[in-house]
Amino acid sequence: PLLNPDEFPDDMNPPENFAMVCPYIFRSGMPKKRNFPFLQKLKLKSILTLILEEYPQQNQTFLLNNGIRLFQFGVTGNKEPFADIPEDVMCEALVTLMDRRNHPILIHCNKGKHRTGCLVGCLRKLQEWSNTSIFDEYRRYSAPKSRSMDQQFIELFDVAPVLRSIDYAQL
Amino acid sequence: PLLNPDEFPDDMNPPENFAMVCPYIFRSGMPKKRNFPFLQKLKLKSILTLILEEYPQQNQTFLLNNGIRLFQFGVTGNKEPFADIPEDVMCEALVTLMDRRNHPILIHCNKGKHRTGCLVGCLRKLQEWSNTSIFDEYRRYSAPKSRSMDQQFIELFDVAPVLRSIDYAQL
Repeated sequence: PLLNPDEFPDDMNPPENFAMVCPYIFRSGMPKKRNFPFLQKLKLKSILTLILEEYPQQNQTFLLNNGIRLFQFGVTGNKEPFADIPEDVMCEALVTLMDRRNHPILIHCNKGKHRTGCLVGCLRKLQEWSNTSIFDEYRRYSAPKSRSMDQQFIELFDVAPVLRSIDYAQL
Repeated sequence: PLLNPDEFPDDMNPPENFAMVCPYIFRSGMPKKRNFPFLQKLKLKSILTLILEEYPQQNQTFLLNNGIRLFQFGVTGNKEPFADIPEDVMCEALVTLMDRRNHPILIHCNKGKHRTGCLVGCLRKLQEWSNTSIFDEYRRYSAPKSRSMDQQFIELFDVAPVLRSIDYAQL
């Protein structure tokens, strides 16, 4: 059900930059403690994080208490000179993301703008969205700090290795 | 399934400002002919439009051919001086929007920014989202043309009449 007034305690606080990407897939910035009651309502089975750092202790505890599995594909953003998002890690992340055994799943990095935007952009490529629509969506979440390098990463990303690695029985 | 390469013909072109709001509810700007193949994939049962004008003929034909029901709640945006979005119309629109017999449903106005943003904002109020999260989402779709009057409309919108009008058996 869309709402259940008896069940909602107080204000529901979604994480920064939270949104539904498509059925069973959500995106956001790093969840904070105040977002945990909201996340519980999503009945997540997994979280896929793109941060490089060790996962924060209070988030680890939240996952443990709620039976949520963590997938960590740590990447650096397309920000530092010479730093590139590795294609093979994004490929693995996409295979994990699309496996319905991991659904519902939340993707997040720190701000939910750039790395998350790249992963969602690659997912949209797999869904055969036009580049215009993919970039519009990327910019909606990263504005006013959109990065051309991210959009180029998405545009040049080769979906063939992902299509070869997918377990089609689990889509 | 998330993707089915055999089934997708070419580029999928979502309408401008397209996104999933929550399960079974989508939002966008006015769908154009080039967006119709994408919309067919959503298997919509209804479209809820907030435009005042007569619904375009080619869109009417698309609806007819695909068995999609049209709900029109025409409102003027919070733009002209003295023009206000009528609360009672938004209340009716919300009751229609939340009725699962109408799902999956697409909400749209012309640009998918202001009127659609107000309706989604009111839905988030019903879902008890914090105002911060509601306004962040509103601005994400309306930037760089966000309107304070829209945000004030959402903030002051009284959910009580909606809660009284909902058919709870159909949530």
